[in-house]
Amino acid sequence: MKELIENRISNLRIEMQKKELDAYIIYGTDPHLSEYIPAYWQTRPFISGFTGSAGMVIVSLTKVALWTDSRYFLQAEEQLSGTGIELVKMRVTGQPEPAEWLKMNLERGSSVGTDEGCISVNQFRQFESRLSQSGILLKESGDLLKAIWIDRPTLPDFQVYEHELKYACTDRKSKIETICNELDRSGAQIQIITALDDLAWTFNLRGSDVECNPVFMAYACVSRKETILFIESKKLSAELRNKLEAEGIQIKAYDELFNFLTLLPSTTTILIDPDRTNQAILKSLPGSCKVIEGLSVPCKLKAIKTEDEIRNIRQAMRKDGVAMLEFLFWLNNNLGIIPVTEYTVAEKLNEFRARQPEFKGISFYPIVGYKEHGAIVHIHVTEANALAIEPDGFLLFDSGGQYLDGTTDITRTIALSELTTQQKTDYTLVLKGMISLTVAKFPVGTRGYHLDILARKALWQHGLNYGHGTGHGVGYFLNVHEGPMSIRQEFNDQAIEAGMVISNEPGLYRSGAYGLRTENMIVCLKDESTEFGDFLRFDTLTLCPIDTKGIDKSLMNPEEINWLNSYHQRVFDELESLVTGELKVYLKELTNKLK
Amino acid sequence: MKELIENRISNLRIEMQKKELDAYIIYGTDPHLSEYIPAYWQTRPFISGFTGSAGMVIVSLTKVALWTDSRYFLQAEEQLSGTGIELVKMRVTGQPEPAEWLKMNLERGSSVGTDEGCISVNQFRQFESRLSQSGILLKESGDLLKAIWIDRPTLPDFQVYEHELKYACTDRKSKIETICNELDRSGAQIQIITALDDLAWTFNLRGSDVECNPVFMAYACVSRKETILFIESKKLSAELRNKLEAEGIQIKAYDELFNFLTLLPSTTTILIDPDRTNQAILKSLPGSCKVIEGLSVPCKLKAIKTEDEIRNIRQAMRKDGVAMLEFLFWLNNNLGIIPVTEYTVAEKLNEFRARQPEFKGISFYPIVGYKEHGAIVHIHVTEANALAIEPDGFLLFDSGGQYLDGTTDITRTIALSELTTQQKTDYTLVLKGMISLTVAKFPVGTRGYHLDILARKALWQHGLNYGHGTGHGVGYFLNVHEGPMSIRQEFNDQAIEAGMVISNEPGLYRSGAYGLRTENMIVCLKDESTEFGDFLRFDTLTLCPIDTKGIDKSLMNPEEINWLNSYHQRVFDELESLVTGELKVYLKELTNKLK
Repeated sequence: MKELIENRISNLRIEMQKKELDAYIIYGTDPHLSEYIPAYWQTRPFISGFTGSAGMVIVSLTKVALWTDSRYFLQAEEQLSGTGIELVKMRVTGQPEPAEWLKMNLERGSSVGTDEGCISVNQFRQFESRLSQSGILLKESGDLLKAIWIDRPTLPDFQVYEHELKYACTDRKSKIETICNELDRSGAQIQIITALDDLAWTFNLRGSDVECNPVFMAYACVSRKETILFIESKKLSAELRNKLEAEGIQIKAYDELFNFLTLLPSTTTILIDPDRTNQAILKSLPGSCKVIEGLSVPCKLKAIKTEDEIRNIRQAMRKDGVAMLEFLFWLNNNLGIIPVTEYTVAEKLNEFRARQPEFKGISFYPIVGYKEHGAIVHIHVTEANALAIEPDGFLLFDSGGQYLDGTTDITRTIALSELTTQQKTDYTLVLKGMISLTVAKFPVGTRGYHLDILARKALWQHGLNYGHGTGHGVGYFLNVHEGPMSIRQEFNDQAIEAGMVISNEPGLYRSGAYGLRTENMIVCLKDESTEFGDFLRFDTLTLCPIDTKGIDKSLMNPEEINWLNSYHQRVFDELESLVTGELKVYLKELTNKLK
Repeated sequence: MKELIENRISNLRIEMQKKELDAYIIYGTDPHLSEYIPAYWQTRPFISGFTGSAGMVIVSLTKVALWTDSRYFLQAEEQLSGTGIELVKMRVTGQPEPAEWLKMNLERGSSVGTDEGCISVNQFRQFESRLSQSGILLKESGDLLKAIWIDRPTLPDFQVYEHELKYACTDRKSKIETICNELDRSGAQIQIITALDDLAWTFNLRGSDVECNPVFMAYACVSRKETILFIESKKLSAELRNKLEAEGIQIKAYDELFNFLTLLPSTTTILIDPDRTNQAILKSLPGSCKVIEGLSVPCKLKAIKTEDEIRNIRQAMRKDGVAMLEFLFWLNNNLGIIPVTEYTVAEKLNEFRARQPEFKGISFYPIVGYKEHGAIVHIHVTEANALAIEPDGFLLFDSGGQYLDGTTDITRTIALSELTTQQKTDYTLVLKGMISLTVAKFPVGTRGYHLDILARKALWQHGLNYGHGTGHGVGYFLNVHEGPMSIRQEFNDQAIEAGMVISNEPGLYRSGAYGLRTENMIVCLKDESTEFGDFLRFDTLTLCPIDTKGIDKSLMNPEEINWLNSYHQRVFDELESLVTGELKVYLKELTNKLK
């Protein structure tokens, strides 16, 4: 592997020299700026051998550096060992950011290249501006790996299928009409759709091009004049193609987008989302076109779930709840009797979900953390690294499914034995945070960064905290991470609006000991309107018992106890008719009132 | 008045035409971008007749418009009546912002002027960028009123005095050395100090150039090479001038700043705070100088009070607490017996404070609101508009003093009779919010916009809210409103740090009925450090009983009741030795445990 990597880097340097580049940045995403990436765009592992899901690489003529975050420090050290690639730890004091590293290693007047097709407009702009302060030029140099990656995987050619109207709830025509209305309001004529989940939502189509997310590689342009889907024709059956064309949707080849943009009339006004559009698209627009920058219209529209979608999600939640209950029942019956590992747990979670109707796959790889593994926030469980689970301490599992009627994401932490006082306090404080956010009522206009403290306050009072966000948007039979809203400390100017579906997942991680997280999905609904404003609230979507063995009731106030009891009553009422026999008895036991 | 205003506007238009301007913006502040403004810079009332404390005016060749906020809608309507000046209501849906108004009223290619000496770099930049989108040019046209304002007041020439070291706690030399250290860290050589409170703090000097704020008109430049104070020489006594010069501080004339800047060596790196520096200063820098933009160093430094300053503030709080207690005692003994109006209350508040040692004046005009006047958030009480106060309903009073050892700002709302259920609920919810923020514990790095919800949550749960921020910084024998931090919904990237002194003032305003606000000053202190971070908390500085007659105890949780009881115990303990006789008995009565 070491020689292979060295060889690739030296080949890349030959290409860099041909283009007179002193360094080359590999951002490691795809032209749609996706979180999960098809093999063709797995450029970071190709050049560095590092297989973690986040990071970037910079190759200069004499050095190579890889940036990644704390989740992957150990893995990166191992995988980079012997390659001469420097590991730079992100968000660690004293470690240089990529632009700083370039400034330290390059002279004024140097040129740095990057593939403009795999970097967002805003990322390119920020890099360009920081480098220019030191007299370094950032160039759009194209994908240099094309010339050196001999056995590069092909682009995915999986078939696209329809998300049937009974699930999608709103037809394509209406969605496109709504997009055009929003374009009119913003003064733009064309929306270029580049994010794969925006695209899937707009056209009620789904695919299998990346793992866990039911999306497919394509672009689209929507305007009052025409709707064009840019997609490889082999991905569409003749039947589906005919159907789309009959609805007035033009089909063009995936790469045709760039020709189309180049030939746009000079008076066109185009809406570009600088965080969701790659730099190559912006550069291909005729200079005479007017660009309006703003949030992608389908990104905003799809985040506001319709009443029909929410009704369907509740149905998916019942199925997911049954699968979770079956898993809990299985674990309870088998732990201490047959060998159980973190890997078995992940497999079993997937297996019970797969039995449910309309299940289409998992929405992400289960995160299963027993004892000290629970404190590794994004642990990736394999057969090789899985811990054996004994009837002792905490087990954390975060998992989710893709159903035709909804995407789920749930975390539970359960006590496998009697707990210490500290364990109980920790568990209860995390639960208090989750409840506090759940029962919040707030005026229209409130941002996620206003609400985030509700999930942390109880922990903070005890000098505790967690290092991740509290909530992310969740797609509707789409990506499990969906924008534009979030509930976290970081500034995000998107208000939380009625119809948004968000996770609620405070946690606590004691390194080397255990990790705790309790996660429900919640939906924002309208509450009362008063002379002081229109108010919103949350309703919980997830239907699965919360382990009460970890609770220290003396730390909870009456409102919190009431919430938990009525939540458990609701879980029982919703799931009762879907289970029988011993499983129903177990459901009853898990949803009993707090003693 | 109407003719006078028309005459002034037509004179201004002649000046505009001489400069080929299609419109002229009067921002209404001074070269130091102050909140309180000397008469010389009262440009907004001069041109419009409107005397409110906030707003801006734009004069085009055919129209005049004035923007102000909801506090002043009624007053502006009255004062603008008959002048032909259009009132534009700020933050009201459908009302154009100034840049929009200009776009609506001017052709492409038009020129708009403004006095670059009275607008911040950032304000100028934002205006320029928005206008340029419509092909309108923003020009630095100087102060056009100079030519037409015949009887313009002179610049204030009040004497500057020293803030003695026993009060200032840190000598000038040390402060200047700290500023230079911070400059070194940011890579800049010179700090231009423009904000009057930054200046007063840096030099341990005070003045009387504006009402309520003990500041004086001057600029300064601080660098390792030299410290220069730009000030009119008549403002300094020979003795003070000699003393400053003996300490190595150069004194130059106020206007000399601009010559000095123009002649800076071309290699100089200058720190400019774009929110606290006027555009004229930026423009006067040689083009070859390097500008680093960032928060003014003394602005940040003075916000972090030293332990000595905090000890002194606690002393000022004891005096302020006695004055407040004397006022409460006087009101209790006289209400219903002699005529009492809102105006009397304001006068009495000032009178009791004035009896305290080291008192130097009020820190702002008392806001006194009886019944429906309480719902007018920034009511300005005059003898003419004051309501007579009866022993019925709520009375709100917000007031503060300038002492050599601290600036105070306190609001109390008291019940003058039995209350309705709604009144009690409202009062209790506001108090709950104030307590919730007071007892917060939070990690280093937390911003004010994270904490703001703590003060609102109880109100929000009842569909209530208030339309102002929760907390502002308070100066040390300086301005009652001080940056850079705040506790409010709006984004402000300044973290709350140990040593910061902030107000904590949630409220509730029922239009036409009553207003409620309870305000204490709090100081941020270090709390514990754990593996999860370094934590901070607040301690209350204000020492004055909170009226318990308005409290519905059933709405309060045990932690809140404990806080109130121990706060009252502390108020008693701190003030007891400073009062005697009936006043001490009254103090005991007001600080009794909640029944």
